[in-house]
This record gives sequence, structure tokens and C-alpha cells, in this order.
Amino acid sequence: MQDKTLETTLLFDFFGDLLTEKQREYFDLHYNEDLSLSEIAENAGISRQGVLDMIRRAERTLEDTEKKTGIVRRFTDMNSALSDIEKELCCLSEKTDGETKKTVLDILSKLQKLKG
Amino acid sequence: MQDKTLETTLLFDFFGDLLTEKQREYFDLHYNEDLSLSEIAENAGISRQGVLDMIRRAERTLEDTEKKTGIVRRFTDMNSALSDIEKELCCLSEKTDGETKKTVLDILSKLQKLKG
Repeated sequence: MQDKTLETTLLFDFFGDLLTEKQREYFDLHYNEDLSLSEIAENAGISRQGVLDMIRRAERTLEDTEKKTGIVRRFTDMNSALSDIEKELCCLSEKTDGETKKTVLDILSKLQKLKG
Repeated sequence: MQDKTLETTLLFDFFGDLLTEKQREYFDLHYNEDLSLSEIAENAGISRQGVLDMIRRAERTLEDTEKKTGIVRRFTDMNSALSDIEKELCCLSEKTDGETKKTVLDILSKLQKLKG
């Protein structure tokens, strides 16, 4: 998957429910279900251009929302910092034993659950 | 600060930039600067009712956005889980010494920086 697509689907994951029902539906079919614009158009009984307009508007709303709020960036930064901490805990678990190792592994497992 | 107010200002922190400029301005003056509706109305040269309407609309937008996306809940859940991990790391640091303690304290400090 291309970077741009990955980024757009991440925005959709966070802000998808702010879109209209149709925008969400067409966006999902195109990006997540990998249907072509023509396939969506045929199923929906509208023009290919109509589908494209809807998806473009959806993309714009998602991008504008992120531009204004920076929320997805905040989450990805957090996940990246959690990954660093995860690595350090892994290292620490290898250097310890007994109760200490057990506690480190327990903390590590909790941290891994947190990552989105 | 009341729970409801705390929750509303948290929503504002995340979604405030999705409001119109005036909504954001009046909301901020009322909730964060603690100005009364009458004071804001006088400064802005509009009616108290006008200010109230604007702030109510802002609150509705913030609440609707959270209702649809659940983003603030996602963040507060994450922070709460990070607090639990923080406590465990604190405990562990007290039970260890030398290099291990140093590493645990280093990880703890990184984790604390993460908390919003």
C-alpha cells in the first residue's frame, strides 16, 4: 500500500464518522474494499464522476480535520514513543531474571496492548 | 472545576480548532478565562443571548464530534493505562539497584513525558 493511501486510511480510521453516510460508504469501498470508481458507480447507479467527487470531498474533510486538530499526528507520535519504550523494556527483560524479569515482562505486555 | 466543565474543556483542547473563530473565541473567554456571558457580550458589543447561543453551539459541536469519533475517550483511556504502567515502574525502581534501576528510571521518565 502506498504511503499516501496508508495515511488517508489512518485519517479515515479516526475521522471517518465525521463524514456523511455516502462519503463514508464510497470511501470505504474504494480504499478498504479496493473497488474501482467504476465498480462503485455501477453498484450505486450513479456516474463515475459522481463517485469520484464524493471521495474527493471525503478526502478533503479528513485532511482538513487533521490539519486543524493534529490528532492523528499526536497518536502516531505517541505510538512511536511507545515503540521505543517497548524496545528498552525488551532489552531490560533479557538482562534481568527472577521477580524483576517477571515484572518487566508484565509491564511490557501491558504496553504492547496500548499500541494502536 | 466541575466534572462537566473539565470534560468540556478537554473536548475543546482536542476539537477547538474545528469551531468557527467566534465560537472558539467566546468559548475560550468563558471556559478558560472565566469571563461571564455578560462580560463577553459587553466587550463584543452583542447581546448576552447571542453569546450564549454561540457557546451552546460550540458545546454541541464538540460533544457531537466526540460522540462520533470517541477520540478523547481513546486518549483518556490511554493516559489511564499509562498511569498504571507508571506506578508499576515506580515500584520496580524501588526494588532494583545499579544499572537495572537506572534503566527503569530512564524508561519511567520517557513514559511520564508521554502522558498528556
